[in-house]
Amino acid sequence: MLHFDSDYMEGAHPLILQKLSETNLIQTSGYGTDDYCASARAKIRTACHCPDAEVHFLVGGTQTNATVIKALLRSYEGVFAADTGHISQHEAGAIEAGGHKVLTLPHHFGKISAAQVENAMEAFHSDENHDHMVQPGMVYISHPTEYGTLYTKDELEALSAVCRKYHLPLFLDGARLGYGLAAAQTDVTLEVLAQNCDVFYIGGTKVGAMFGEAVVIPNPGLIPHFFTLIKQQGALLAKGRILGIQFDVLFTDNLYETIAGHALKMADKLKKGFSEKGYPFYMKTPTNQQFVILTKEEMERISSFATFCFWENLADGRTVVRFATSWATKEEDIDQLLARI
Amino acid sequence: MLHFDSDYMEGAHPLILQKLSETNLIQTSGYGTDDYCASARAKIRTACHCPDAEVHFLVGGTQTNATVIKALLRSYEGVFAADTGHISQHEAGAIEAGGHKVLTLPHHFGKISAAQVENAMEAFHSDENHDHMVQPGMVYISHPTEYGTLYTKDELEALSAVCRKYHLPLFLDGARLGYGLAAAQTDVTLEVLAQNCDVFYIGGTKVGAMFGEAVVIPNPGLIPHFFTLIKQQGALLAKGRILGIQFDVLFTDNLYETIAGHALKMADKLKKGFSEKGYPFYMKTPTNQQFVILTKEEMERISSFATFCFWENLADGRTVVRFATSWATKEEDIDQLLARI
Amino acid sequence: MLHFDSDYMEGAHPLILQKLSETNLIQTSGYGTDDYCASARAKIRTACHCPDAEVHFLVGGTQTNATVIKALLRSYEGVFAADTGHISQHEAGAIEAGGHKVLTLPHHFGKISAAQVENAMEAFHSDENHDHMVQPGMVYISHPTEYGTLYTKDELEALSAVCRKYHLPLFLDGARLGYGLAAAQTDVTLEVLAQNCDVFYIGGTKVGAMFGEAVVIPNPGLIPHFFTLIKQQGALLAKGRILGIQFDVLFTDNLYETIAGHALKMADKLKKGFSEKGYPFYMKTPTNQQFVILTKEEMERISSFATFCFWENLADGRTVVRFATSWATKEEDIDQLLARI
Amino acid sequence: MLHFDSDYMEGAHPLILQKLSETNLIQTSGYGTDDYCASARAKIRTACHCPDAEVHFLVGGTQTNATVIKALLRSYEGVFAADTGHISQHEAGAIEAGGHKVLTLPHHFGKISAAQVENAMEAFHSDENHDHMVQPGMVYISHPTEYGTLYTKDELEALSAVCRKYHLPLFLDGARLGYGLAAAQTDVTLEVLAQNCDVFYIGGTKVGAMFGEAVVIPNPGLIPHFFTLIKQQGALLAKGRILGIQFDVLFTDNLYETIAGHALKMADKLKKGFSEKGYPFYMKTPTNQQFVILTKEEMERISSFATFCFWENLADGRTVVRFATSWATKEEDIDQLLARI
Repeated sequence: MLHFDSDYMEGAHPLILQKLSETNLIQTSGYGTDDYCASARAKIRTACHCPDAEVHFLVGGTQTNATVIKALLRSYEGVFAADTGHISQHEAGAIEAGGHKVLTLPHHFGKISAAQVENAMEAFHSDENHDHMVQPGMVYISHPTEYGTLYTKDELEALSAVCRKYHLPLFLDGARLGYGLAAAQTDVTLEVLAQNCDVFYIGGTKVGAMFGEAVVIPNPGLIPHFFTLIKQQGALLAKGRILGIQFDVLFTDNLYETIAGHALKMADKLKKGFSEKGYPFYMKTPTNQQFVILTKEEMERISSFATFCFWENLADGRTVVRFATSWATKEEDIDQLLARI
Repeated sequence: MLHFDSDYMEGAHPLILQKLSETNLIQTSGYGTDDYCASARAKIRTACHCPDAEVHFLVGGTQTNATVIKALLRSYEGVFAADTGHISQHEAGAIEAGGHKVLTLPHHFGKISAAQVENAMEAFHSDENHDHMVQPGMVYISHPTEYGTLYTKDELEALSAVCRKYHLPLFLDGARLGYGLAAAQTDVTLEVLAQNCDVFYIGGTKVGAMFGEAVVIPNPGLIPHFFTLIKQQGALLAKGRILGIQFDVLFTDNLYETIAGHALKMADKLKKGFSEKGYPFYMKTPTNQQFVILTKEEMERISSFATFCFWENLADGRTVVRFATSWATKEEDIDQLLARI
Repeated sequence: MLHFDSDYMEGAHPLILQKLSETNLIQTSGYGTDDYCASARAKIRTACHCPDAEVHFLVGGTQTNATVIKALLRSYEGVFAADTGHISQHEAGAIEAGGHKVLTLPHHFGKISAAQVENAMEAFHSDENHDHMVQPGMVYISHPTEYGTLYTKDELEALSAVCRKYHLPLFLDGARLGYGLAAAQTDVTLEVLAQNCDVFYIGGTKVGAMFGEAVVIPNPGLIPHFFTLIKQQGALLAKGRILGIQFDVLFTDNLYETIAGHALKMADKLKKGFSEKGYPFYMKTPTNQQFVILTKEEMERISSFATFCFWENLADGRTVVRFATSWATKEEDIDQLLARI
Repeated sequence: MLHFDSDYMEGAHPLILQKLSETNLIQTSGYGTDDYCASARAKIRTACHCPDAEVHFLVGGTQTNATVIKALLRSYEGVFAADTGHISQHEAGAIEAGGHKVLTLPHHFGKISAAQVENAMEAFHSDENHDHMVQPGMVYISHPTEYGTLYTKDELEALSAVCRKYHLPLFLDGARLGYGLAAAQTDVTLEVLAQNCDVFYIGGTKVGAMFGEAVVIPNPGLIPHFFTLIKQQGALLAKGRILGIQFDVLFTDNLYETIAGHALKMADKLKKGFSEKGYPFYMKTPTNQQFVILTKEEMERISSFATFCFWENLADGRTVVRFATSWATKEEDIDQLLARI
């Protein structure tokens, strides 16, 4: 069986395991105060061209979203997000459990625009009952989105401008960020993110790490007592070094983007292969998730030798499915898949 | 410098790293649905003599406490705990952030007794205003406690009996459980825990794993939708296999207790060495944490070559400090320490 | 100036003030344990043909919604509601502050249907990721709705059936219930509500009381420790008698429906008057809220002598506005309004 | 039967009912935007010598405590309070339900001191693990306390000074404030409170109103969007006028202190009467609550003709009970009580 269900089906990049082994019996202090974390932070700051940034390491995406959003909002505030956003749909109510409403905006292939935020703010302030309503307090976006799409630098700058106009911190969920940074025609770099986001994170779990998300706060001190908040959320790893080591490896010799680039090459090959065989696409994306439309017969046939992710039923009886590549995808698996579809 | 600050200063037991490497590129499904998790669960059930138990893997202790306690309580309920309990003091308000009061009882070297719980319940019910007060909803204990002490089987059975009498689930925090199970004269086994606790967990972070806590629910179905609660709490690891592999190794060939036993041997040696040199103890414990009383001069001198944990100032100007051993403590470090104190 | 902004612009029905004065210096115990509350509860049980019902008195609508919903849901659950529902829009995030997501369904003039709930439940259970999502835990409806519309008995029974099928408690917000019960062609009575709802409330604030909502739980014991939950929510009035007295008066000699009936007569007259003058309606409702469409010129002109509530801008530049009558509306005010529009 | 259980056994001062009747059918806007609220606010500002203060009207004490404390704290913070404080014991976990820990300090007859707060802050900051702990975020006191005791102006100023030193807002629960202001030898006035507290409230429920607490924020803008927070907490009365009217009456012609003074005269008479008959006191207080020690025999005998509140069992078998007077206490009831004890 060939597996294309998701980008978190393997362990970690071998260099990470190697470094974990090499350092295993060295004793360090806990909770992220060790030298590996310090080194990883320094490398991330350099990569972001943001020497003053705070960098915090958390374990997973839902946890990071819940922790950051709770940290940024006051109790009377909610968070704008695409209706398809991970926090809107797939986090089991983690944001609401923290006391906050997700204020959904209709997505355009996973994205929301500066104009949507501006219009929503104007509508809010012109509503004479707005004091009886949740106050918009921040904006959440993901890059790549749930649909594998990417913002352009212009789009991010426009979002950032409207956010600053309305004093809404802009928070970018980068659970799959590597696959965005490595995309062929993107003009969005870590530096661009550091200039436009108030908080963003660099996803490790789906891009080569066993687990881990590196939260970057370009303007240090934006969130007072964030360490305590991380602890309260149950997101503080006792052996913080395990996170530090992983990100230190990922940010050495550009490994993070290099391995993401591999996933994109595999995705391109897959895209090309399906296209050549005449399969229609729901959406061709510049990243590692590809959305193909299959008939019922095709679904059944391909399912016999490959796994993938159900996405959506179309009105005509066909189905949208997602094939995901990753840093670990083997070219021979792509070849076999394409040979048999 | 010799390090005795805590039991989480190294990475993981080498067999764990070895297994992580061996399995690294095998593809599995996520969120704990993989075969490694299944195998680990089976071994834990066997070790607990509890073939029907639910076993869930979470990442860390504070997270596990917050998730289980929120799952067991209704919104009008609080949790009994020793005033020194980890949830009372050192979790940054995680229980309160989940909406619940910690109802503290005075500890006896970290422990609380069945009689204390019974008296507290009687006092509560005899208070004519008790409908205006937080309802006691469960009991939290730790084993070993924050003070390295252990419950006896009799004490646990008595606690369990009073808990059942008052319909209070009994939850045991086993962040350092291995060091309790391996203690010389304990009669508390995993089977005893499974018989007396409604929920307990087997700590990995401090006993050989990189991280991870295995939550055991002897009576399956006690907590409906616990998976969703884990997700909501940000405690669900995408690559659940990383937890499964670690616990699978720890529960193969009795590794968990074996390596905990090493820590206890090292603690015994340390205890004996300090005693022979005439150092008074605040408390000699049967586990891996030892509490020595130092004068100011001794503090400064020993600090020059060893690290340890400040515990408490005494009225006479002396200080209680904690030396912790672990599965990874090297005997030569103990020897060096004892040679120089 | 003539006022039709809302149905809470006056104090209380004079009989309520009279009874408050008569009983003022009689001493009673607090927190709803007095004889006036007991009497009011008995009368409400009789009116509901539900001799075993629990009846609790709370102060206001948002508070009641937040308290009941928090009481009925477990932490992994959310509440279905119309996207226009009061809890969705106008309670400043009170439900989310309690930890729960509002799962919105598209409204039909303020209503949702049994079919919508059934479809949503089927979609939820057929989603392979539903364990990562908020579990639907109850259904919230209002009667009359935000749009002044009413459910029929058949619609309520269908909703109730689907709710019972999926173990979703059905909660009915009756902030304006009197205006629903008194409607000309409704077949929904208090008895029908008691048979079909798991919890509902009889709104006092908008129907003759100074304030107060009477929560009815037909199946006693459904919510354990509801008293404590009310206290926790800050919704327990020390002088509970003030609520008991008001509902005792409202449920004596059918006052509640009688005064609501007056509001409906006034609404009918208003409706007829606007119609005769050719004003188009956005919606003619059977209750005390009427939605008229005004041109910009009409808006300005009528605003010079009457107040009303902005509802919505239409694409063609016209505006929907709401005129609300109440138990206190004076017929001469209606006459003056109609004479001048 | 003579009733001395509490100070909320009657309705409201007759002048309040009279004003409610006079104004009953006048139409006003809702949610505290009416002229009665404006007038009451102005009078309270004048009484506090604080022309810029924000004044908000809420319904009850627990609600006010929960709303203000949630508004003042960030999610990583807790609130210092006496261990006997109302928020610590008798609010059903309302503070924890809002996400915050109550950090208890040992009381001295209901009070806490500046030195206690200072010591607690020093201990906190000197704890090397304080980042893993709830951060102290504010101080809660009550005046009069649960024990009927009063702070002096000096004590308040000292508390205020230490609070400002550590950036801890000082919040004073004045549920029984009238009985404190009217006390014979107090030097604490509304002006003193406005100078020393960041937020305080003037209790109506126990001092002549049907219900209602007036929250004063001397430094306007201290709590952004407090209106929305009040709404979210379910504490916003639709007919806000009912609160405005009550406080307008209470702050006209010094009614608030005058009627509180009556309660104190009655308490003095009661105190004197019990003393003359040789009853020992647990505590003689300067306010309306008096704590008498009764033998078992006396308890039974007095219970046959008077009600009072159980307070505490003493080790010698005797019992402390509380007799409360109020604005409504009849002198003849005191006379009868004293004649029969």
